[in-house]
Formats: sequence, C-alpha cells, structure tokens
Amino acid sequence: MTPAERVEAAYDRIGSVGRPEIWIHLRRRNEVLAEAARVDPELPLAGLVAAVKDNIDVAGLPTTAGAPSYAYRPDADAPAVARLRAAGTVILGKTNLDQFATGLVGTRSPYGAVRNAWDPARISGGSSSGSAVAVALGIADIALGTDTAGSGRVPAALNGIVGVKPTKGLVPVTGVVPACYSLDCVTVFARDLRLARTAAEIVEGPDPADPLSRTGSQLPPPPARPRVAVPAEENLRGMADGWREAFDTTAVRLASTGVEIVEADVTPLLEAARLLYDGAFVAERYAAVGGHLDKHRDLIGTDLDPTVASIILAGREKTAVDWAVDTARLATLGAAARAVLDGCAALLTPTTTWHPTLGEVAADPVGANARMGRFTNFANLLDYASLAVPAGFVNGLPFGVMLTGPAFSDRVLTALAERLANPALDLFVVGAHLTGQPLNAQLVQAGGTLVGPARTAGNYRLHALSTEPPKPGLVRIADGGPGTGPGAHGSAAAEGGPGIEGEIWRLPAAGFGALTAAVPAPMTIGTVELADGRRVSGFLVEPYAVENAPDITRFGGWRAYLASP
Amino acid sequence: MTPAERVEAAYDRIGSVGRPEIWIHLRRRNEVLAEAARVDPELPLAGLVAAVKDNIDVAGLPTTAGAPSYAYRPDADAPAVARLRAAGTVILGKTNLDQFATGLVGTRSPYGAVRNAWDPARISGGSSSGSAVAVALGIADIALGTDTAGSGRVPAALNGIVGVKPTKGLVPVTGVVPACYSLDCVTVFARDLRLARTAAEIVEGPDPADPLSRTGSQLPPPPARPRVAVPAEENLRGMADGWREAFDTTAVRLASTGVEIVEADVTPLLEAARLLYDGAFVAERYAAVGGHLDKHRDLIGTDLDPTVASIILAGREKTAVDWAVDTARLATLGAAARAVLDGCAALLTPTTTWHPTLGEVAADPVGANARMGRFTNFANLLDYASLAVPAGFVNGLPFGVMLTGPAFSDRVLTALAERLANPALDLFVVGAHLTGQPLNAQLVQAGGTLVGPARTAGNYRLHALSTEPPKPGLVRIADGGPGTGPGAHGSAAAEGGPGIEGEIWRLPAAGFGALTAAVPAPMTIGTVELADGRRVSGFLVEPYAVENAPDITRFGGWRAYLASP
Repeated sequence: MTPAERVEAAYDRIGSVGRPEIWIHLRRRNEVLAEAARVDPELPLAGLVAAVKDNIDVAGLPTTAGAPSYAYRPDADAPAVARLRAAGTVILGKTNLDQFATGLVGTRSPYGAVRNAWDPARISGGSSSGSAVAVALGIADIALGTDTAGSGRVPAALNGIVGVKPTKGLVPVTGVVPACYSLDCVTVFARDLRLARTAAEIVEGPDPADPLSRTGSQLPPPPARPRVAVPAEENLRGMADGWREAFDTTAVRLASTGVEIVEADVTPLLEAARLLYDGAFVAERYAAVGGHLDKHRDLIGTDLDPTVASIILAGREKTAVDWAVDTARLATLGAAARAVLDGCAALLTPTTTWHPTLGEVAADPVGANARMGRFTNFANLLDYASLAVPAGFVNGLPFGVMLTGPAFSDRVLTALAERLANPALDLFVVGAHLTGQPLNAQLVQAGGTLVGPARTAGNYRLHALSTEPPKPGLVRIADGGPGTGPGAHGSAAAEGGPGIEGEIWRLPAAGFGALTAAVPAPMTIGTVELADGRRVSGFLVEPYAVENAPDITRFGGWRAYLASP
Repeated sequence: MTPAERVEAAYDRIGSVGRPEIWIHLRRRNEVLAEAARVDPELPLAGLVAAVKDNIDVAGLPTTAGAPSYAYRPDADAPAVARLRAAGTVILGKTNLDQFATGLVGTRSPYGAVRNAWDPARISGGSSSGSAVAVALGIADIALGTDTAGSGRVPAALNGIVGVKPTKGLVPVTGVVPACYSLDCVTVFARDLRLARTAAEIVEGPDPADPLSRTGSQLPPPPARPRVAVPAEENLRGMADGWREAFDTTAVRLASTGVEIVEADVTPLLEAARLLYDGAFVAERYAAVGGHLDKHRDLIGTDLDPTVASIILAGREKTAVDWAVDTARLATLGAAARAVLDGCAALLTPTTTWHPTLGEVAADPVGANARMGRFTNFANLLDYASLAVPAGFVNGLPFGVMLTGPAFSDRVLTALAERLANPALDLFVVGAHLTGQPLNAQLVQAGGTLVGPARTAGNYRLHALSTEPPKPGLVRIADGGPGTGPGAHGSAAAEGGPGIEGEIWRLPAAGFGALTAAVPAPMTIGTVELADGRRVSGFLVEPYAVENAPDITRFGGWRAYLASP
C-alpha cells in the first residue's frame, strides 16, 4: 500500500470499528492524507501509520495527558514522534489513556473507558489504552505508549499485541508529561515483534535535552542454550482461570527451542514492585502534576479522575525520610533480585494476572488495578528492559507473556521472544534426508541441526518406493493390529516390532515450513510416534505409493536396506 | 622494618606527638605487637600499620560514629578492614571524626576537636579527622576514612596527604555507619600516591552483603595528551589568600607535563553540590541515625553534637515531593555537568577553599563548614571518583588539589596525579646528547622526548673538551662582561653573541634524576638561560675542564664544529 492508501484504510477502519474512545484527538483525514502524499517511499517506515498516546507531544496537537484542564499545545514533536515521522510514518492522532498515565486499566479517563479490542465488556488495560487498541484493531501499525509501572505492556497483553519497554533512557522522555519522572519510558506497540523492534530502534537515541537520556552497549546475544528463569509456584498463585496452564505451556514451548528453564523465587522483585505505589516514590507523581490537581480540586469527579487524583495527592504526604528508607530498601531488593536471576538471560512471566471486565474495575478501582501490575511494576524500579509478547489465547481472549532482563538486554529479550514466536521444530527423517543421503542438504539449508538418532515405535513398516532418488515410505500400522490398516499387507507382526531407525533434525519454523511446502508426492509430513512414546513431525507417505512397494521393514532402516546385497 | 618494629615506632610516635584527640579507641600496644608478630612478611602490606575511622567496624572494638551513646561492638570487621588485615596491615585503633560523619571540619565530636597536623590552632578538616592526622603525623601508614561530601578529601588537603575517594560501590559499605547511605564511600589516606592507590585497590572488590556494591570496568588510561578542565574564574573566587595562585601554579605544572588545560564553567557542579545539605537528601541522614537522636534528645550538647543534631533532625522535615524535585534537578545538573566536562579526562580543582582556625569554626559552625565543601560535595551526588593530592604549601600550610572524574575513572585520575607528583622535566643539551650524537640514546632510554631546537642566550661560550667520546663544554660568561668570569679567557664579546645551538629534551622526573646522577665529570647539570629568556636545566661543565680547551663558540654549536674541516 502507498502511504496514502494506508491512511485511507486506517480512517475506513476507524469508521467501522465504532471505538471513538480510542482517540482524544484524531487528526482530520484530509490533512493526514496530504501529509502521506509527501512521504518519501524509500523511508524505512514509509506506508505505515502511527498513533501517539496523549501524554507525548505532537507538534500542533494539544497534549492533555487525559485531563482536558491540563491541555497545552506544544510547538515541537517529542523526539520519539519526530523520529517516527522522519522514518516515514504518518501520525493519525493522540490516544486516550489512564489520566496522567496513572493506572493499568484504561478506564480512568474523562474521555471514556477504552474497551478491549477482543471483548468490549472487558478493559483494554492501561495506561496506554488507546494506543494498544488502535494497533490491535488494525487501525495503526505502530503506536507510542509510555510505561512507568507496566503501561506499555499490560494493554499489549490484554489486546494480543507486542509491547516494547526499552531500557530506561534509550528513548528520550523530552516532550512527555511525567508520571514518575525518574522511571518513565516511552514504549512501542505493534502487531508483530519485528516491526515493534524496528520502530523501537528508530525512536531510540540520545537527546541532549533529556538529562536521563543514556546510551549503553547492548548486552551480547544469548548463548545457543540460554537459561531463562520462570517464577516459582508461589509467585504464580491467584491468576485468572487457565492462565497458569497457558503460562506453563509457553515455558515448555520456550524450552523446546533449546532454552534451559529454571525456577526462581522472584519474591524480591515482587516486593520491589510494591514500593511503586505503596511507598514514597508516588511523590514523584505529585511533583509532576500535583500542583495542577491542587489548583483544580473543584474538577475532581468531572475533568479529573477521582482515583487518579487520590493516588497523586497522597504523594504529598510522604516524607523525604520515607523516600530515603524506600531507596535503601529498593537497593537491597535489587541486589537480591540480581542474585535470584544470576546466570539467567531473562525472566519469563505472565504479563499480567487477570483480565477484568469494566464492571469489575469500576467496583474496586484501586484493588483491581493493583492485581494488573504484579509482574510489570518491578521492571521500572529495578532498571530492567522488558518485552511483552502474545502467547496464545485463554477462553477466547489473548494471553501474553513478558521477557524481562537487566538494562541494555533489549536485544537479548528480542532474540528470546523470536524463539517463542517461531520455535524450532523437530522433524523425523528415515530416508533420503538422513545424514549422508542425497537430500540431507535440504535440512541443512533450511537451518536444521541434527538432534540425534531415533527409532519409531514398533507399529511402523518401511517400504522401498520407486521414486528418484530412491526413498523409503514409512507407514504406521493401525492400532487394531494386522489387517485393519495399510500395514495389513505386511508379513511381520505389527505391534512389538523393532521400529524403524531414523534421525531427528531441528529446524527453525520458517525453514520447516519451506521444506514441508516443497515435499513432493508421494511424500508427506505427519506425526510419527517414537519408541520412547514421543510424537514428532516426520516423513510419511501417501498410501498409493506403497501399494506395490516392497516391504523392507526387516532391515530395520533405510541405510541397512541400502547396504544389503 | 618488621611489622613489630613498625608497631613499636607507631606507639612511640603516638606518645611523642601529644595528640590524644586522634583516637576514640587506641588498642593496647602489647595486643597489637602480638598481632604484628604473626603477620606473614610476604603479604603486600606487611610491615604497615593502619588506623580506622570510628564509623567503620573493627571486630571486637566498639563503633561509636563519634557518639558514645551510639556505641555498639561489632562481631566482624567491615570488608575494607578485613581486606587491609588480610594484606598484612595491623590496625592500631579507631579514630575520631565529625559525629555521624556529618561535617568537613573535624571539630564536631565529644571526643574533642582534632587539631591540624601542621598547625594545632587550625582545624584538621573532617569528617575523617583522626584518620588523616594519624597518617600526616607518621603514626599510621594507611588510614580508612569515609566520604559523603568530601570527608575523605578535605582533611587530606589540610594535612598534606593523599586521599582516595574511589568510585562509589567499589569498596563495600558493609559495616559502615551510614551518613547518606546512597552516597557513602570508604576512602583511603596515605602519605604518598602509590601506597594510597595500592591500599585502595586492596580494599576494593564486590561484597554480596552490600546492595550498592558494584564492579565496573575502569576507564582506559588517559591519552598521551589528555585534556583536563579547571574551573572558570568565577568558580574560584573567595578562596584563602594565596590559594588561587597556588592552584594556578599547579595547573601550569600539570600543563607542563603535556596535559591540555581547558577552562570550564563548573556552575552546574557547584549547584548540584548545594543539594547535599540544602535539599531533601539530608533525610537520608535522618533515616540512618535520626531515631537515635530523637531517643536521646537530652544528650544533645553533651554526648551528641548540637550542630550535627540540628542538621540531621532537619532531614525529618523534608517531604518526598522535595526529594522528587531535587532528584529531577540533580539529573538536569548532572547532564549539564557532563556537557561542561565533555572531552575532558578529569576536572582539576582546589580540594577546599580555606583553612580556618578552630576559633573561626566555633564562631560559625555551619557557615565555616559550608565553605569547606565547594569542590568536594558534588562528586558524591554526581557519581564521580575523586583523588585529593598535596600540591605544595601556602603560608607554611599544606595546599591540596583534587582530580575528579566520572565513575570508574579511578585509574585515569591516578595517572594524572602521577604527572603532578612527578612532572616531566626539560633538559637542554648541546653536545654528545644531541639527536644523532653518540650519547643521545641515554635520553631516549630515560623516557625523554625531543621538544625541539633551542639556543642559549648570548653570554655563553662553547669549548671542545678532551673527553671520550668528545664533548663540548658550555660555559656562561659572568654578567659583568669579559674578564670577570670563566668566559674571560674567550676571544669573542660576551653579551650580544649569537648563543649556542642545542636541543631541549623532556624527561620524566625519575629518568631525569637517573641521568643526572650518572653524568660523568667534568660534565654537570645546571641552569642554562636561553635566547628567549627561559631558564632550563642543561649540561654545563666544571671550570677545570675548559682551562686549556679550545674555544669553539664561533661555530655556533657542536654540530657545526664537528662538520668543520
């Protein structure tokens, strides 16, 4: 699509989805179209459209931070916005958020609660609610959010998209309304990992106007067999129905790609998390916007969200001694966290713990919100990078997991997430793809590596096909025994046979797919049961090809058959 | 000296100097002697004795932090103490300090004001007062201090010794009574730079019990021609008489070693410094020991120092919002400081601004103290390493300067300080040491580099000596004109002559010394006046050797003479 065509599609989609609450300020279609017409098609993000959370400045549009009374009209784009534009994206408008980025629910806004992309009765998650839903509904390709406690990750999980929280300081916070100034990050949403990371790297970079801007060397990529921690049993209690099982499945899937999964008691991280709202650091929120709240007390309940106001105004009551004590406590917990995760490339967690309805949040605004941040809050306080990625569905709604690691581990997390998105797949081969045989090079070219030899269960027979090059056909005998399946024409007993020798090869998903797509008839790829009971993908054969093909099961494998006189 | 002999000497010295206020707890001589007898003489610090500031734990001795009511008796050495002992030092005792390490004067202690090593009417500086004076008076070889605002550097300057404030976190603060927990450093005093740095590297190292412990790569050594910043004119106003001139002289001396000196307006650093006591960070002091002060209000004025108590108790009044604002302000000032010092290997400053008498401090305890920390306070807040070194004397009292750089610049600072301790020296050569002549290799071997050609003033004559290898003898003609000096036997007019061609070579002080010591008769090293009026060291000759040596002044130089037919 050309940039203009993409803009047309975005506005059409905005019209069709019926989610006006996504936007605090939507730019006029013609104005955006005119801008799209001027985009250099050679730019890396040309043809993509973006949405910007309304606590981040876009030149000429008001910045409200979710409070109409707070609005100002900036002269300049925030650097993150300017960099997206310079790379060819067109900005559609400013998105709704939990007011002053204080919340993980997406309901704390006088512009309306943002409803979930998959189920409008449920919350979008926040605070970057509008940005996440705009991406999830396919309106925007990329959206900017912010993250102080999980605001760039929780709504990614609840809407089934990717949320990148880069290492603090990599993306300037110039032109961003502070939530907790020393903890804030600009984040990126996209529907797939590659685009999310591309956009994140485009908005990263130093900014002399941002005192907290920092550049650091990215940690080296993880080793071939990285170690990833998962929370211990007691850290995972109290999640929504089915979420624990979904998380375990994800961990197993990551393990299947060669990652060593170790259990870690992440209590120090969860205790650090509690300091974010229960401790003195909330005073930073007062320092940012408390003066506005004090001045406009009469607007609390209308323009100003009562829950947000109560959280921020409480920051005024904390003492500097509280802060000193919390800072020391955080240092202790940080050291304990480093010890817990020592030797691990990252921590894998669920992104959040449940997915409430709008009503559940309305009934208990603070309590419901607190449950959202169990696994996200600590990353900001402990100076971690984090990456939220989709991990399937539970009860028809998206389920997401997070990879979290130390500062400057952004690329490590990406490499691990790629394994989850595209786990390596095992393929059992018994003939021309075996090591040393004519088609083995196909496996190598597809990125495969030999896992090792393996043997089928006893109820398989092997036939010599009349293909070129010569190949064997592996056929499973029906469980009912001889006479009921394709193996019925064999001469040996079906069950209890010796099984067929072969090899397991491990391939990247893309390579596996390409290989499968290219397999010529009569060969097929199906499931093979191994002698140890595992079931793996493997080469089988269409029935027609074995009709008159000699049964060579007695040789125990293709190599032995070829070697026979 | 054996360890035991060194201990005997230390106690003899303690007896002779009449400075009981140095010690809060001095160990019994026999006990220390017995310990010394067990020291392995192969250890790197064997035969050295140490003193420990009394806010650092030594197993079995009480830790008071300068307040008798606060005393506790630790079971374990602080890691810094344990590491010194493991390296062979013997601990003499615990030294006096500004109570709770709150002060830069050395007078805020119920154990008495610590008098300066050079002038007992003046302050020692603090808070590591006893440790610094114990080293300056030759009692201890090494002493441990702490530094939160300059406490490990100001007393080094006022007593003419070296004070190392390592990068925060390199030396564990386990077993140290906190002053400002997040800013505290353990420091090292010694009389010379090499021992101070050796001891600092011995006490550095990770400690799992210290959450703020950190290890980082030391920055690479400075380039051959490093750039060092000095404060701009307006940053240096209001120092004691003669100190500005002494500082300028030091800067010139550093420049003479090949360092490029650049002026920098360090106002952002000085503004950051003010946040240490004027801002909310003083709440950390309350968090550390405020509970003790609250509980023992009746002891203020006796056991508890009233100035210290008033500073620490004020920390209770600050709010967390104050802290948030100060933290953000500090980030801004830190970024501005980085910009100001961009491209510089370090900042050279005076260590403090004046050296008051005990009476001057008593008359204005807070105001006098505040003047001490202008150039030290910011290092702790801005996460800088710093190194205080002696830089001569002003009005008979030590004057000190500091090299300060970013975290992990410790070795860079050391390399720069070595230049100050041992500046390169220039040597004028006119004969066999000239480039291409037989003895030139001696200059190169001594670490010399050619500065360039130069010519003497007109009142020098050159003689061809009968040495092997052949050398010329350079002789100055007395200012009185021909007939009054050794040049009187020459035939040319004395003043207004063309001068003698030669070369200036620049050598490290040690190489210069070795070369000078090896110069054979009749050659000497003295002062040579150059045609441009400069006076440099250079080769001259004893008078006897020119008695009958041909005058070759008319050739204008040794090379021209050698080239003549």
